[in-house]
Amino acid sequence: MVVALGGNAILRGKQLNSYADQFENVRRTSRQMAQLVAAGYQLVLTHGNGPQVGNLLIQNEAAADLVPPVPLDVCGAETQGQIGYMIQQSLRNELTALGLTRPVVTLVTQVLVDADDPAFAAPTKPVGPFFPRDVAEQRMRTKGETWTEIDARGWRKLVCSPQPSGIVEADAIHIMVDAGAVVVAGGGGGVPVRRRPDGRLQGLEVVVDKDLAAYRLALEVGAEALLVLTDVPGVAVDFGKPTQRFLRRVTLAELEDHLVREPFSAGSMGPKVRAAYRFVHDGGRQATICALEDALAGLRGDAGTVVERAEGGRR
Amino acid sequence: MVVALGGNAILRGKQLNSYADQFENVRRTSRQMAQLVAAGYQLVLTHGNGPQVGNLLIQNEAAADLVPPVPLDVCGAETQGQIGYMIQQSLRNELTALGLTRPVVTLVTQVLVDADDPAFAAPTKPVGPFFPRDVAEQRMRTKGETWTEIDARGWRKLVCSPQPSGIVEADAIHIMVDAGAVVVAGGGGGVPVRRRPDGRLQGLEVVVDKDLAAYRLALEVGAEALLVLTDVPGVAVDFGKPTQRFLRRVTLAELEDHLVREPFSAGSMGPKVRAAYRFVHDGGRQATICALEDALAGLRGDAGTVVERAEGGRR
Repeated sequence: MVVALGGNAILRGKQLNSYADQFENVRRTSRQMAQLVAAGYQLVLTHGNGPQVGNLLIQNEAAADLVPPVPLDVCGAETQGQIGYMIQQSLRNELTALGLTRPVVTLVTQVLVDADDPAFAAPTKPVGPFFPRDVAEQRMRTKGETWTEIDARGWRKLVCSPQPSGIVEADAIHIMVDAGAVVVAGGGGGVPVRRRPDGRLQGLEVVVDKDLAAYRLALEVGAEALLVLTDVPGVAVDFGKPTQRFLRRVTLAELEDHLVREPFSAGSMGPKVRAAYRFVHDGGRQATICALEDALAGLRGDAGTVVERAEGGRR
Repeated sequence: MVVALGGNAILRGKQLNSYADQFENVRRTSRQMAQLVAAGYQLVLTHGNGPQVGNLLIQNEAAADLVPPVPLDVCGAETQGQIGYMIQQSLRNELTALGLTRPVVTLVTQVLVDADDPAFAAPTKPVGPFFPRDVAEQRMRTKGETWTEIDARGWRKLVCSPQPSGIVEADAIHIMVDAGAVVVAGGGGGVPVRRRPDGRLQGLEVVVDKDLAAYRLALEVGAEALLVLTDVPGVAVDFGKPTQRFLRRVTLAELEDHLVREPFSAGSMGPKVRAAYRFVHDGGRQATICALEDALAGLRGDAGTVVERAEGGRR
């Protein structure tokens, strides 16, 4: 099974705290993951990298006169090493504490996108630090970049956010999972690459949504279940209204109805719902969206929002 | 077999050039590595990270007021992601061009060091950017760090450089190699960790020499041969004297004589010679130190400096 860790798996709140705090949060997450391993589940873990890649881009800007700036694809690979290291060290520790011996390792992962993805028509995803209008305008003029004014904090660069069409290292992930290892892969949505006409892979300055990449990863490694962990108990409908309620078990058809009626764009729930929907639609047995603390119960269908093919599909 | 890539595998000269240049150099290296795969060798690749981690530390310093600084162990993991990504993408491309299908993947790798390593008595390895005396003195006073004046460029921080005593992810590397994958592992000497009395792993702000880590890696994955690639044709004795000559084939006993007579400290050859010596001493069949361009010939014993257990040990 593939587990998509939310931002709160590594950070508390939106700020990138000290590394001691981050390790403490990763440890809390690793304890939950160790429980899943102890329960017999085979795990592929994936995670976001928003705050980390944001900080790398700030560091790149701050040192731009001293060292060559690092392209966005390479920055993404850096955060896979950084976050993967913290998770694999911490999870190995928690497994050891439970008396479980299991290889735990991070695989640097590239995600394929199609050159003709319509998302290439317009950049929509903000990356990197805020800048004042004059810097943004200069970058647009001299580098052909797209920038947008976010709010009073200033302007941010926009990049395209195409759909994931393949996981380059799916072969390697398969090998590790088959051998009983716990794998961290596809961090930050994977390092986006395209296949050039000559067959060669080439990194791209775009961002693939991490939840959609998790869906793609789950599909390609043949996972039975996709578990999307977040900081709320599940998917709410009528979000923010007096009629708000959490969905518990939904069939694909029911979820389709909800998707038609409301966009789930509130917060970061939209991509999670779409990832869960698409995974089950494309053949997965079950997708669960739940709180980190409910991981094991969610996987068993006893907590969170559980998406299944059809009524009673679980039996 | 384990192949230790020298700095010139990624960079030309000592400067960290643009990423376009780095990718071009990595491609040149990958072509050589693809030839080894085509010849039937199973490869574990490892590499240094000096210039890359140096740049990360410069970026950390430049943005220290904006984002929390990243500890040295986490920086090392970032460079494993960064360099590993470039190698795995490029090598997959070169294999594809040869019609070879093989998983190629980077494994984030921790290297164990012993808490009682005598190297912890005194920091000896410079890391990070140069600073003026007043900054160095302030850091020594306020943070208890060790700094030293290098030359006219200024002062640098020193960290300890203990011996590698184990590769934490050896289990995962084994799995991948047994399945026929090409693995990038142990980059930058590995992320140094110690095992605490409670059994948990903990990252350390130290640096493990990349060639010694390559020796350890070769030993733990049961490699038959260790290939150390550099930018000279082999190991020279009487370096810089009129009597200078390259060693071609040496037995352990002969190499011991040389090691006693001269320290091989000129340039970066010392650690390479010690890694080759220790690998063969501890049971490896052959260690070769040669130029990148001679990789295949060197592996066959036909180029570079080839270290073997005893005369004719090759047959």
